[in-house]
Amino acid sequence: MKSQARLLAPPEGFPVLGMIGGGQLSRMTHQAAGGLGIGFRVLAQNPDESAARLVAESVFGDPDDPQSATEFASACDVVTFDHEQVPPATLAAMAAAGAVLRPGPQALELAQDKVTMRQRLQEAGVPVPDWAVVTDLGQARAFLKEHGGQAVLKLSRGGYDGRGVWICHNDADLASAMRHPLSPGAQWLIEELVPFEQELAALVARRPNGETVAYPVVRTLQRNGMCAEVIAPAPEISAELAAQAQQIARSVAELSGVVGILAVELFQTPQAVLVNELAMRPHNSGHWSIDGAVTSQFENHVRAVLDLPLGDPAQRQEWSVMVNVIGRSAQDLYESLPDVVAADPDLKIHLYGKAVRSGRKLGHVTAFGSDLAEVADRARAGAEHLMGAADE
Amino acid sequence: MKSQARLLAPPEGFPVLGMIGGGQLSRMTHQAAGGLGIGFRVLAQNPDESAARLVAESVFGDPDDPQSATEFASACDVVTFDHEQVPPATLAAMAAAGAVLRPGPQALELAQDKVTMRQRLQEAGVPVPDWAVVTDLGQARAFLKEHGGQAVLKLSRGGYDGRGVWICHNDADLASAMRHPLSPGAQWLIEELVPFEQELAALVARRPNGETVAYPVVRTLQRNGMCAEVIAPAPEISAELAAQAQQIARSVAELSGVVGILAVELFQTPQAVLVNELAMRPHNSGHWSIDGAVTSQFENHVRAVLDLPLGDPAQRQEWSVMVNVIGRSAQDLYESLPDVVAADPDLKIHLYGKAVRSGRKLGHVTAFGSDLAEVADRARAGAEHLMGAADE
Repeated sequence: MKSQARLLAPPEGFPVLGMIGGGQLSRMTHQAAGGLGIGFRVLAQNPDESAARLVAESVFGDPDDPQSATEFASACDVVTFDHEQVPPATLAAMAAAGAVLRPGPQALELAQDKVTMRQRLQEAGVPVPDWAVVTDLGQARAFLKEHGGQAVLKLSRGGYDGRGVWICHNDADLASAMRHPLSPGAQWLIEELVPFEQELAALVARRPNGETVAYPVVRTLQRNGMCAEVIAPAPEISAELAAQAQQIARSVAELSGVVGILAVELFQTPQAVLVNELAMRPHNSGHWSIDGAVTSQFENHVRAVLDLPLGDPAQRQEWSVMVNVIGRSAQDLYESLPDVVAADPDLKIHLYGKAVRSGRKLGHVTAFGSDLAEVADRARAGAEHLMGAADE
Repeated sequence: MKSQARLLAPPEGFPVLGMIGGGQLSRMTHQAAGGLGIGFRVLAQNPDESAARLVAESVFGDPDDPQSATEFASACDVVTFDHEQVPPATLAAMAAAGAVLRPGPQALELAQDKVTMRQRLQEAGVPVPDWAVVTDLGQARAFLKEHGGQAVLKLSRGGYDGRGVWICHNDADLASAMRHPLSPGAQWLIEELVPFEQELAALVARRPNGETVAYPVVRTLQRNGMCAEVIAPAPEISAELAAQAQQIARSVAELSGVVGILAVELFQTPQAVLVNELAMRPHNSGHWSIDGAVTSQFENHVRAVLDLPLGDPAQRQEWSVMVNVIGRSAQDLYESLPDVVAADPDLKIHLYGKAVRSGRKLGHVTAFGSDLAEVADRARAGAEHLMGAADE
């Protein structure tokens, strides 16, 4: 592992928190850790990654490699992650070397393997869509037929941001999806296509002792399988369903033993909420909390993994709307920044220091206020302007 | 100049902002610049300085040295400062080499030299305390006698946080103060001791084109010549006096040509407000704005010096109270952090990564809400707990 970092002991008494991965989640966690005076390090691939651009104590190496990760972890009091897809062998090597991993490998398994997740949640009585493991096209066809001619086929491991997920409306869709190779350890998971009214996310932060705080349940809008927009709190949901979603997130936190932020993505149907996916790290559906909550998800992730009492997750305004800035036609986001901030002096801009690529998350904007329609318009207008004209 | 930094070009179109000085003001500016995706560098003395602990692109050298500063500036699109006391020769060398300095040397002169400041403000009709330049003890005694037997003696250059300022109640106090050597270029300035009702600060951010936004006027409480506490907005002040204070700050910004944050410290008397001191950088009296305003002073400093439209300086809650965490008996601030955050999950903690020394600014805490007495109690309780028992 090559290290170009300046590694310093923090002031007396303060711990060193290490985060594996150099993306924007580490970048924003760094800002929260810095606020608390915590020593903060990241293990990143390259100096031009989003977090490495900001973090003084960046260490460079392959985050997936057991030796790099173990060496990195040996200098940290606690290790956390900006993604769940850390290879089990790497987690095991760090744990064997005595690293304090939060969340731990057993919790992470639920976020890494959708089949394990479905089984564990179902056993615990947590509502999930109808699902099955299928090993061939025939089984997949039978499931599709039993579920009204449509279904969602997923790789059990390795997918994110829409990758590894195929919505299938006929046998040909199934056949096309199942031509993708199964990576080692992965299975084909098929699920009913839930006719949802809206998608929700319920975030909780959990300490090692089980203390948990729950963020307001939010509405998420996906485009191309990727989070595009978040409304906090979720509109058009009864207090009972919102409480049910928070309770599901608390149950999943407890049954998984997660430490840090847990994000539970849910489908809202007329009668119920069903768990779609899990994430065990700060999550795109919680970015609104930087500006919109008393304590951001990033600060509560830091507090939770360091076993500090958690901060208040309450919203500061009636409504917050977050819109992602995703790579499109504009190659130079700075060019439009003056017009965007001039048009709306109350807009909160967050850019991640990443080069523009089509479909890449480059930043987000958040607006807050008391009129949802106006707040949503402002956030969308700012993000649209930054992104430039839509790709053809 | 030795450089251990990873220096990177920011993504296409984004500028590089350099800040001279590695203290907590650079640390907090870094957090704001990172939010906007700006390339951000600091010129610091040592890797364990407050900003250098966080900033990936830290360059190490003597910030006062013309060669270090010029070399640093040559790689930045715009250069700003975390303090005003940059030697004029260093400013001149950077300017001669083509650096874009914001604020510029002419503006900084007003914040560096209290005699120049007093002259310029008085010429412009800005209300200031009675003052005079004195060259010997006899002149100082005469001023004291004419002003009710008390006065404030100041070094015209080089003082800050109470250093270089002596409150004198008799001739012996004057004689004792004037035994201090005058540094080159400095003069003795004597001023009336203003019988103020409260001390205020008025902050504005100003762009190169003159566009200015004004923060709500705040009350500052000093202890041992150092800012201890800030209440935003200032209580017990008429709307007229508050508007007058803001107008004074706008006038000083205009007459000085400052770019960035200007902080004007004022005395409130029953009839008027009088200018005490100036600072041309993010200022302790504006730290509340990180959590309490729509746009923090740090973000507006970044926007102003990069000539971006300014953000809304409005307060988000009725009251914000900021209390400094100043080095006292507690050597390990982290030890009390769990109890502090457990006692008040809504408190915002900001620690600067600095080793504890008596009288040193180590952090601040901010509380906000609608009941001033309760908000002030919460902020004071948090800071007191972190600082530990008072020194003997």
